[in-house]
Amino acid sequence: MKEYKVVFRPEGQIINVVEGSTVMKAIKEAGVDFDFLCSGGKCGKCRVRILEGSFQSHADEEKFLGEKETSQGIHLACFTEIHSDMVVELLQTNTAQHQILSTAEEGSMEIAPHLCKKYIEVQKASLENYQSDWKRFRASLFPEESQYITMAETEISVLYQLSKALRTNQHQLTAITYGHEVLGIEQQDTTERLTGMAFDIGTTSIVGYLMDLHSGRELSVVSTVNPQTKFGADVITRMNYANQEEKGLERLQEAVTGAISKLAKEATEKVGLSSDDIYAMAIAGNTCMHHLFLGLSPKYLSQSPYIPTTTAPLILSASKFPIDMNKAGKIFVLPNIAGFVGADTVAVLLATQMDRSEEVKLMIDIGTNGEIALGSKHKLFTCSSAAGPAFEGAQISSGMRGAIGAIDHVTFEGELRYSVIGEGKPKGICGSGLLDVVAGLLELGILDKRGRFISPEKMTNPMVQGFKENIIQYEGKPAFLLVDGSSTFHGRPILVTQKDIGELQLAKGAMAAGIKVLIDKYGIVVEDIKEVLLAGAFGNYLNPHSACVIGLIPKTLENKIRMVGNAAGTGARLALLSSKEYQRGAAIAEFAEYVELASYPKFSSIFAGSMYF
Amino acid sequence: MKEYKVVFRPEGQIINVVEGSTVMKAIKEAGVDFDFLCSGGKCGKCRVRILEGSFQSHADEEKFLGEKETSQGIHLACFTEIHSDMVVELLQTNTAQHQILSTAEEGSMEIAPHLCKKYIEVQKASLENYQSDWKRFRASLFPEESQYITMAETEISVLYQLSKALRTNQHQLTAITYGHEVLGIEQQDTTERLTGMAFDIGTTSIVGYLMDLHSGRELSVVSTVNPQTKFGADVITRMNYANQEEKGLERLQEAVTGAISKLAKEATEKVGLSSDDIYAMAIAGNTCMHHLFLGLSPKYLSQSPYIPTTTAPLILSASKFPIDMNKAGKIFVLPNIAGFVGADTVAVLLATQMDRSEEVKLMIDIGTNGEIALGSKHKLFTCSSAAGPAFEGAQISSGMRGAIGAIDHVTFEGELRYSVIGEGKPKGICGSGLLDVVAGLLELGILDKRGRFISPEKMTNPMVQGFKENIIQYEGKPAFLLVDGSSTFHGRPILVTQKDIGELQLAKGAMAAGIKVLIDKYGIVVEDIKEVLLAGAFGNYLNPHSACVIGLIPKTLENKIRMVGNAAGTGARLALLSSKEYQRGAAIAEFAEYVELASYPKFSSIFAGSMYF
Repeated sequence: MKEYKVVFRPEGQIINVVEGSTVMKAIKEAGVDFDFLCSGGKCGKCRVRILEGSFQSHADEEKFLGEKETSQGIHLACFTEIHSDMVVELLQTNTAQHQILSTAEEGSMEIAPHLCKKYIEVQKASLENYQSDWKRFRASLFPEESQYITMAETEISVLYQLSKALRTNQHQLTAITYGHEVLGIEQQDTTERLTGMAFDIGTTSIVGYLMDLHSGRELSVVSTVNPQTKFGADVITRMNYANQEEKGLERLQEAVTGAISKLAKEATEKVGLSSDDIYAMAIAGNTCMHHLFLGLSPKYLSQSPYIPTTTAPLILSASKFPIDMNKAGKIFVLPNIAGFVGADTVAVLLATQMDRSEEVKLMIDIGTNGEIALGSKHKLFTCSSAAGPAFEGAQISSGMRGAIGAIDHVTFEGELRYSVIGEGKPKGICGSGLLDVVAGLLELGILDKRGRFISPEKMTNPMVQGFKENIIQYEGKPAFLLVDGSSTFHGRPILVTQKDIGELQLAKGAMAAGIKVLIDKYGIVVEDIKEVLLAGAFGNYLNPHSACVIGLIPKTLENKIRMVGNAAGTGARLALLSSKEYQRGAAIAEFAEYVELASYPKFSSIFAGSMYF
Repeated sequence: MKEYKVVFRPEGQIINVVEGSTVMKAIKEAGVDFDFLCSGGKCGKCRVRILEGSFQSHADEEKFLGEKETSQGIHLACFTEIHSDMVVELLQTNTAQHQILSTAEEGSMEIAPHLCKKYIEVQKASLENYQSDWKRFRASLFPEESQYITMAETEISVLYQLSKALRTNQHQLTAITYGHEVLGIEQQDTTERLTGMAFDIGTTSIVGYLMDLHSGRELSVVSTVNPQTKFGADVITRMNYANQEEKGLERLQEAVTGAISKLAKEATEKVGLSSDDIYAMAIAGNTCMHHLFLGLSPKYLSQSPYIPTTTAPLILSASKFPIDMNKAGKIFVLPNIAGFVGADTVAVLLATQMDRSEEVKLMIDIGTNGEIALGSKHKLFTCSSAAGPAFEGAQISSGMRGAIGAIDHVTFEGELRYSVIGEGKPKGICGSGLLDVVAGLLELGILDKRGRFISPEKMTNPMVQGFKENIIQYEGKPAFLLVDGSSTFHGRPILVTQKDIGELQLAKGAMAAGIKVLIDKYGIVVEDIKEVLLAGAFGNYLNPHSACVIGLIPKTLENKIRMVGNAAGTGARLALLSSKEYQRGAAIAEFAEYVELASYPKFSSIFAGSMYF
């Protein structure tokens, strides 16, 4: 039976399913966060938008969908059968609280909004009740409070509207509060409208989640390429741009804040709101993204000893920050741990609740830099490993990012099979594909522990036979021919060369060494680790078995691996929905100890040892 | 022996002294706040600047004064003999703390600066000590503090300079702090330079005091006419201007903030500093001045029930307020009590410490509006009495402000004598002069209790004879001819007409009624009042005996009257020098109960009864 590839937006998960499967089945198999409230056909809640592909729907879904929805390509996942490769946008109609909890590890998240709205009636003044407008206003808002509280600066700006607003609205208005601080007032009763956005600012892409701050419901999800990419693909290039170009820092800040404003507009317009309805934002990103977002110079972050200006949690007033949202709002920037372990890692730890775990867990988030955390409620260590670009397909002869045309998975079971992102002829190989190839070659005995191709006559494994012809010579060294030029998009073969293997060795060696250092620092043995959490996009793509075969993750932990998806985005959402979670994030940033690998006593030897497969 | 008039700047006190008196003697007789550290001729501290007039100095003073000082007209008060009318500027070289305490009533004022400076050395970062710049900076600044404190908004702005400042100054810098909040950083050790200014914003004039915030020493005093006068002489006209003219409010705010910036420049330049050395300001003024200073619309303040937008204590960041001072600084605006009992009254209460008094005291501050306070540490009532313009010489036939050419005091002892401000021929009569005339006429039996001239044949007092010819007819009614046209500046006679007396009756009636209402409200009798404090410029000018004769102040209190000078300025200085005093001001504003006279049950009859002399 024919298989089709289904790509889920906005997060980009991919799954192969057999023809005729329902989208619901595909969603479930992909392990994507999506809530099915019934077993299918009854509740009408599993709405998706089919962006590409042919499919067959069922007339029954019409009773659940309005005309407008149908015209927008919205269907129910349970009724929709897959008949080609598809791109499906997940419309989150389920409560985000539940969804977040399903991603977050343990315990429960209580919604504790940073900001509140209250519709109040203020006593009218008279010669007998001569108290100032502000005093009568506060008396209605906080009847219990003692009277002489010095006003916060934001409150002073409220004064400029208060007197008139009271008198043009029969002394009734909506107050936006932050603790006992009044951030703004609005005419009429607007208490229903209180949304916020959580952002995960990645070096490559930015994802934004629009949330209802009352219910915790996720209203929409949007994403974009980080427009800073045009100033440099990686953080190093961008830091250099900020440090060396006149107005470089300004441009980088404008790029990211502009993108966030645009996403805010997009996310709110999707659900009939506007940017002005956003009262709170939570921001997570690595330390460089954090500094550039704030417009802080990354100068000292870019040179040893890589010191950030600050790692503290920051709460910005929207009125003073160049982002389009309600001017009474607040922006909650998550704290960093160190120069190369940023707020994104704090968000992952927040989502995975490692700080609350009785047992020791290992968290791995692989990107250009890999962040590793090892710990429990008792101790928590983090480090950053310069994994290098191999995992992202860079500096690999046929390498490419995990985009359309990339070979993302390879198997050697009997015959060589591979899957290509977005179907079609392959253009190259991405990190997860490379991992599979090398793992396969190791298991077949084609590569030795040092990563070198074994001479064909020494290959003993009978399984090797089917792949021997793929071992070719490339620039005087053996290489593995993954796809012949006749089958590729561009007509050039896709190879895995001896040098590519060396690059992967460096990358996995760095990660594995980081893990070993943290284990050493914690004073435990590998077997004490109760769970391995793979976070981030790459963590979601890679085959855990391959990761263990090449020794990226200790082999004994293979059965303890769990994918936690975009945990940074989840952490940002938690910090947005709950001031307690935001505070927990601040506590995590303090609690987590950063381990600088370069100055760790045994690092060189550990690293050297980790290069072997 | 000839007498000369000496006017003291900046506060404008006036005294008559005999020819040849020293300025020191004049200062002492005038009861002006000025510290003499020796009995004369020894310490060289009693510096004054002679602005006008001829005098004789002593060669000995040269050993105390530099050339520069001599060229600026600076002399020592103890050596300088008066040989004409003079205008003398008091250069305050004494410690303001002492001086303030001599004005303030009881207890002691502890200097507790709002802002501090600390010169610190921050640990250098390394691969081993990888903490962020902010964290290491705070660890040096507040070694005792627990680590994860959310940054204040002002602190975030410090981040933009911190990393570079640390590395260009060997990790040493000066931090400006406000509690545990960092307001700014400065290169080098600038801890010595920490000054502030207290402002008393009057409707007519603005006085500013430059203070050393470390020692509490007063460095200079400056004053100017409130430039808002060009938009209206009184608060009502200015409020109308703000409410009716486009940009009226903006212009009024710009006028006062501009004047304050100018005074700040002037005050600091006098002592070799600049506006940038001012880190704190304390602001006192009536509620209208308060609103216009902040740029808050006085619309609802100008119409019944006269409600201010706020009466709360406000602390503004200098970086966001249009005044030239150090941008890291703070502006401490004193709180108001009600629409017509403003922060200036709070400042007076702060200075006079009525809120700490075991015994009941009465405070009277007379201007266009008279503010009255009656109370003790147990209860404190305030009210505002629309004294009307009579006390300021307005709506009086020959009336004028207490400026050059005004008759300010009149005596009837044997012959009619009067004194003129600034010497020269009189131009008119000001409030204190009018008070003296009416009191004299009452004592002579020329006026009856209802304020009407008694027919000459019914005058029984033999003393009247000398003044009978001064009783003339003016517009068909009797009037008192104070100065014949031949002796006046403009050739027109200066009269006190029956209508003038009526105006004064209204004014004193309003004040007296206010006092009676507060006594009634407090539930005491007049005799329970232990002291009467006369505050403000008019309070300093008027003859207390005359005030009692006309019944402005109950006669039985005559011996309990004390002048407290510009107590509002003193209160503002206290609030500037001590955060505890500023907080006490906030507490006073809450503690003091405002009594609205217009709605007080018995007010009409009390007012009617108070019109009688």
